[in-house]
Amino acid sequence: MKLLRHGDRGSEKPGLMHTDGTIRDLSGVVPDIAGDVLSDEGLSRLRDVDPSGLPVVDPSTRLGACVGGTGKFMCIGLNYADHAAESGMKVPSEPVLFMKASSAICGPNDPIIIPRGSEKTDWEVELAVIIGTKGKYISEADALRHVAGYAVANDVSERSFQAERQGQWTKGKSCDNFGQLGPWLVTRDEVADPQDLTMYCRVNGQTMQDGSTRTMVYGVAYLVSYLSQFFTLHPGDVISTGTPPGVGLGMKPPRYLKAGEVVELGIQGLGDQRQACVADD
Amino acid sequence: MKLLRHGDRGSEKPGLMHTDGTIRDLSGVVPDIAGDVLSDEGLSRLRDVDPSGLPVVDPSTRLGACVGGTGKFMCIGLNYADHAAESGMKVPSEPVLFMKASSAICGPNDPIIIPRGSEKTDWEVELAVIIGTKGKYISEADALRHVAGYAVANDVSERSFQAERQGQWTKGKSCDNFGQLGPWLVTRDEVADPQDLTMYCRVNGQTMQDGSTRTMVYGVAYLVSYLSQFFTLHPGDVISTGTPPGVGLGMKPPRYLKAGEVVELGIQGLGDQRQACVADD
Repeated sequence: MKLLRHGDRGSEKPGLMHTDGTIRDLSGVVPDIAGDVLSDEGLSRLRDVDPSGLPVVDPSTRLGACVGGTGKFMCIGLNYADHAAESGMKVPSEPVLFMKASSAICGPNDPIIIPRGSEKTDWEVELAVIIGTKGKYISEADALRHVAGYAVANDVSERSFQAERQGQWTKGKSCDNFGQLGPWLVTRDEVADPQDLTMYCRVNGQTMQDGSTRTMVYGVAYLVSYLSQFFTLHPGDVISTGTPPGVGLGMKPPRYLKAGEVVELGIQGLGDQRQACVADD
Repeated sequence: MKLLRHGDRGSEKPGLMHTDGTIRDLSGVVPDIAGDVLSDEGLSRLRDVDPSGLPVVDPSTRLGACVGGTGKFMCIGLNYADHAAESGMKVPSEPVLFMKASSAICGPNDPIIIPRGSEKTDWEVELAVIIGTKGKYISEADALRHVAGYAVANDVSERSFQAERQGQWTKGKSCDNFGQLGPWLVTRDEVADPQDLTMYCRVNGQTMQDGSTRTMVYGVAYLVSYLSQFFTLHPGDVISTGTPPGVGLGMKPPRYLKAGEVVELGIQGLGDQRQACVADD
């Protein structure tokens, strides 16, 4: 299934992308794409619903982030060897974790808001893993059973805030609208191998990132297991698994986003995003 | 007012500490100590309620974290000059921000759970600032108007996870039950000067931290304004403002918590916490 959330920001309703290409409303079935709905049992109940009988949603309706109630928005740094190289960093000996503020999460086509004072706003296409079932000290063998599904994420990053403003990356990762998530959550049964998905990011039509999750250093199952050694993972928690090469920071000279530019990104089988860059006036 | 949340974890009810020393239940008045209830208007409505008419809560009832719906649990690092020195770090030229997972938040007297594999679990008494009114690009002059109130926080920290496990402190700051918050939120009208509060932390009855918010490098108003330059602050967001000297990491030799030990901490006018340390078996 392709699960999504549609409607105005802060009051999104649950929905799904039907195989006939229409968006269908799930408001009468579940309260949100969140919490228990993301468990294997919850998803199984949704699979029993015939989408043809659900109300059709106007295709011009805004899409929100594809999951609600996200407590932890975890990100893995330097998880593609080539991206680490372009950033001038080594591949870490175990995963690097940083947090994005959950308030950064927004819809897949919501604008990238360039913060006041920013000169180094950058893009990062990433495979996002959405937790479906609570767990702690999860083994790598069991890890994928805790995953509800996958989505595209843009880990938008302000490189000066991240690295030149004293300590810890979170400052440059947590600005409003720095976490586009969606268009939909593709349930894990429909993703044959999360480690074999092509992904891209274009700016103004020019391809900047053209990679594959094949070159990820620490794979999805490892990351779920690894993170759960530190804390409990809850339904709706999101793990953004790092970005392949081709970010603005890595170019010579570096190249950052300006108001009026357009960013497009996507992952094989998980859909596409499109964002206009706007100044925060 | 001293606002609190009482009851079992995950289903806490709103309440307040009455001047007669009894806990009173606010379930019939507001849904939670969260969201709009924390605004100046919301708090004003609560002040109009006569606590004497509210149901008395059994004093043995568990207290939860004093605020619900926390999206961002922001922490400021190295914000006391002497603590920076004991950590072998310099006072930063602007505030250091890191995030604790919101899933780390728990009640003031809930146990400190020592994670599996931990050998360096440490204490940090901190003044927590609870946001009441949404804001972005807030001036320092306006900053305190966005604050609902203050509380005691224990920024429990696993020093090995924080500093020896590759990149970014959040790993050692976000374990389950690493964020005791309460016993209550004291509304800002009852805190004459947040920069003049004594604070302490004891382990097994021995005083380890004995400081004052007077020696904070970046004060509350500055921090609220500073952080709001990066992202919108929302009601229920928490800023933990750093710890004074006396943490286990700074001792010679360092001294860390073990199962069976007891941590007590508090801040002048904001109440006290008491935690047993337990192993995560």
